[in-house]
Amino acid sequence: MSNAYASAPEADIILSTRVRLARNYADLPFEAKIAPEEAQEVIKRAAARLCGDEDEHFTFLRMSSLDENERKVLSEKRLVSLDLLAKPETGAALVSDDETVSVMLNEEDHLRIQAMLPGLQPERAAEKAFHADDRLGAAEPFAFDAKWGYLTSSPTNAGTGMRASAILHLPALTLSKRMGALAQAVGKLGFTLRGMYGESGEADGCLYQMSNQAAIGRSEDDIVQNFLAVCAQAAEQEREERKRMIERDQDAFADKMMRTVGILLNARLMDEREFMRMYSDLRMAAGVGLLNIPVPGIDRLMLEMQPASLNALAGDELSERDRLLLRASEVRTRLTALMDDDEHME
Amino acid sequence: MSNAYASAPEADIILSTRVRLARNYADLPFEAKIAPEEAQEVIKRAAARLCGDEDEHFTFLRMSSLDENERKVLSEKRLVSLDLLAKPETGAALVSDDETVSVMLNEEDHLRIQAMLPGLQPERAAEKAFHADDRLGAAEPFAFDAKWGYLTSSPTNAGTGMRASAILHLPALTLSKRMGALAQAVGKLGFTLRGMYGESGEADGCLYQMSNQAAIGRSEDDIVQNFLAVCAQAAEQEREERKRMIERDQDAFADKMMRTVGILLNARLMDEREFMRMYSDLRMAAGVGLLNIPVPGIDRLMLEMQPASLNALAGDELSERDRLLLRASEVRTRLTALMDDDEHME
Repeated sequence: MSNAYASAPEADIILSTRVRLARNYADLPFEAKIAPEEAQEVIKRAAARLCGDEDEHFTFLRMSSLDENERKVLSEKRLVSLDLLAKPETGAALVSDDETVSVMLNEEDHLRIQAMLPGLQPERAAEKAFHADDRLGAAEPFAFDAKWGYLTSSPTNAGTGMRASAILHLPALTLSKRMGALAQAVGKLGFTLRGMYGESGEADGCLYQMSNQAAIGRSEDDIVQNFLAVCAQAAEQEREERKRMIERDQDAFADKMMRTVGILLNARLMDEREFMRMYSDLRMAAGVGLLNIPVPGIDRLMLEMQPASLNALAGDELSERDRLLLRASEVRTRLTALMDDDEHME
Repeated sequence: MSNAYASAPEADIILSTRVRLARNYADLPFEAKIAPEEAQEVIKRAAARLCGDEDEHFTFLRMSSLDENERKVLSEKRLVSLDLLAKPETGAALVSDDETVSVMLNEEDHLRIQAMLPGLQPERAAEKAFHADDRLGAAEPFAFDAKWGYLTSSPTNAGTGMRASAILHLPALTLSKRMGALAQAVGKLGFTLRGMYGESGEADGCLYQMSNQAAIGRSEDDIVQNFLAVCAQAAEQEREERKRMIERDQDAFADKMMRTVGILLNARLMDEREFMRMYSDLRMAAGVGLLNIPVPGIDRLMLEMQPASLNALAGDELSERDRLLLRASEVRTRLTALMDDDEHME
């Protein structure tokens, strides 16, 4: 069932895994009470630790030196949060060259260390996050309590300061209306599953984020192992549901998927919501082997067709109509290239 | 505006023109009172006149010797009427090899002589019909009254016995809701415009039939000339409306048309109504030059995708599902071939 191109574990269902660590310097006030010069001290320390690194090169980005579209592109790439964008004066980020590790500075905590990898790889992502954590905490100690663990602005992050999250693509479970039951089931295990990108609870592109609820009371390793298990199980349920859907009516399934391909290859105007629906179909068709298109290529296409990324591509703030035109034209070109790379299965 | 491939006059808008002549032998009772052996006499006379012809070869088809699907194929090709199909015992037809001339025997009148040509060609079609008429009436005289003209089963056909009709493709006038006004306007001139193929007044594929209301009170030539003028005018209105539609939003127009192409080239299941809608888009896109596909090829595709024609292609009575599959697969193959013949314009 899994696609040959989906080299990362569970990549047919899981787009990416992220492990985030919240840290605060013990000798500086937390975010609610921090003074501007103290926030600059956070930046100075973190940049000094990571920018000189020879193994892994980091780029330092001060939010105030980026224009609005550049900031939005960082958010669309999930390298920084919307909360950081809301702090143009003191907010900053350190981003590794391969964009797998990013550290947000002066967001809700002094440091938010994030490592993001394709597919389901919480152990490897945690390793990468801890590696950055070790380097960042080497000189100035972090706020840590023997009983409570790491101290954070919000008590929900205290303890390990760790949040593991993953983006799951669950179109079959969505169509069969099983998402409510799944969200409830994982809730009982201490995890949250919620729609991404969509408004009012809908999940555009059938993308959902799974994450652990509490950072306290368990070891980091326990969090990672439990997270791994619950994500793998959700992915397996999605695979089973896709199988049932295809067995129920293979022709209707192929018809729906191939019509999507036809529209993507021919439309002249395409808005974001429609594109996300079609991305979801395309990703599922590739995931089950109906189309020989590499899933990572489809995900890259999705990320690059977001509004700020399209503006960046055009080198200009696009009008609404021009964005619809550019999205349609880029999708045609890029999808054609993705399909030409491999044999388009009949 | 007109397509290079639409070699027949007005073929960007008008699919075909038909001229039909109603004739009855003077010495045989009309249809309502005809005895079976007299109906056989009609067949014998007509076949004797046309089958021996050396210029134009005709095939003789007795409805009773065809199976149900073969009869439906004749109707889908518009060579015989549904009324003739309802008379399997005495109904018959003579069809010229190029299928431009067909004579129905023992339909509402003894003879219904029809000549059908692509585009708007009522004069040429009338010529062809009169040529067959001359040969059929050469030995046994037709019922003719000095005051009333040719006598027919239904008084609406008496006089010239002539009905000119054409199939018009009017998607832009349909979309802009101008069909009601057009039908009223041509009605005042003595013509009828009604939707073809659709149920309850809708016109599947935006195809309409224009025909003259009365066969009496005017010369054949007047009927033909008036018909020519009113059809050409309707076609011109459609062209103007297409132009306005494109000028209003060229991108939206291209988007709609190209999505249709994408679906036609990729769908795995296609029902007749959806196909007719898409045929209409495709024909308009070719008609205005957005696509370089020959319009006659698109019309042939439409005729061949009808249910009985698909059964004939499969050599079997298809299940509903199998027909959806075969239609989708044939459309993919044939449209690809039509597009490969010519350069697919960007």
